[in-house]
Amino acid sequence: MELYAEHGFEQTTVAEIAGRAGLTERTFFRHFSDKREVLFSGADSLEQLLIAALADAPRSIAPIEAVAAALDAVGARLDERREFARRRQAIIAANPELQERELIKLASLAAALADTLRRRGVKDPAASLTAEAGIAVFKVAFERWVAESNKQNLPFLVRDSLDELKAVTSS
Amino acid sequence: MELYAEHGFEQTTVAEIAGRAGLTERTFFRHFSDKREVLFSGADSLEQLLIAALADAPRSIAPIEAVAAALDAVGARLDERREFARRRQAIIAANPELQERELIKLASLAAALADTLRRRGVKDPAASLTAEAGIAVFKVAFERWVAESNKQNLPFLVRDSLDELKAVTSS
Repeated sequence: MELYAEHGFEQTTVAEIAGRAGLTERTFFRHFSDKREVLFSGADSLEQLLIAALADAPRSIAPIEAVAAALDAVGARLDERREFARRRQAIIAANPELQERELIKLASLAAALADTLRRRGVKDPAASLTAEAGIAVFKVAFERWVAESNKQNLPFLVRDSLDELKAVTSS
Repeated sequence: MELYAEHGFEQTTVAEIAGRAGLTERTFFRHFSDKREVLFSGADSLEQLLIAALADAPRSIAPIEAVAAALDAVGARLDERREFARRRQAIIAANPELQERELIKLASLAAALADTLRRRGVKDPAASLTAEAGIAVFKVAFERWVAESNKQNLPFLVRDSLDELKAVTSS
C-alpha cells in the first residue's frame, strides 16, 4: 500500500507490490485476485463481523439499535488501524475504479444487513430501510473519521451520526 | 433496449442497436459514448430535475421534507415511463457492470443533494445524512415500484418509504 501512496494506484504494478512484500508475482496471485484486492482483502472479515454482531444482538432492542451495535463492533475493529485506513482512503479517493469497488462493497453490506434483519423477523420495507439507514450512518461516520482533523473514535462517530440521522428525519 | 431484453446486454452489439434504431454506428456514437449509455442517458436530466426541485423548495420546510419534495418531482417524471423503467431494471439486474453504473449514479445523486443542501445553509453532518437518507428512501421506493406486483405510483412509494424510515429511526 505504501507503493500506491508513493506512485499512485494506476502506476504501481503487481511486480512492484510483490517485490516490496518479498513475494513472487505467483505467490501474490495466490493471495489476491488482482492488485485492487490488496485494498479490499479486509472487507470480507469486516462483513462477517458486522453480520455476526447483528445476528447476536438481543432481540429485545429495536432493529436500528441492533444495526448500530453491529456497526459499533466494526467501528471498534477499524479504530485499531486508523492510520492504515486514512492512507487507504486517500488512495481510493484518487481513483474512480477503486471508488466503484467501495460503493459495491457498501451495497453488498446493505444487502447483507437487510437479509440478517429479515432473518430476525423484520418485515420489508422496514428491513431494507433500516439496513440502508445503517449504511448511510456508517458512510458519513467513516468520512468524518478519516478526516485528518477529526480526533473522535469511529464508534463514537457512528453513534453521533445515528443521532443526527434521527434528528434530521424526525421533523 | 428491446435487444438487451431479447439477447442480454453482453450479447448485444452497438451495430445491432444502431441497426434496430435505423442509425449508423457512427451516428450512434455521436449520441452515446458506449452501449451502457443507452440505459443511462436519462439520468443526467433526472439529476438536474432533482437538484432544481430541491433548490426551489421553500426554505421554511425541513431539509428532509425539501429532499422528499424533490424526490416526488423525479418520481412523477419516472412514473410516466413505468414499463420502460421495469424493462430497463430487469436488464440492469442481470448485469453486474450495469449495477455498478447504477450505484455510481446513486452516489453522485447523494453528493449533489448534499451540496445543494449546504447551499441552502444546512450544516454537516446533517447535510450528508439528509442526502443519504433521501437516496436510501428513493432506492427502496424504486425497488418496490419496479416490482411487477406493485400498483402504487412512485411519488406515493417515496412518501411511504420516508414514513417507514422515520418509523424505524424513531426508536
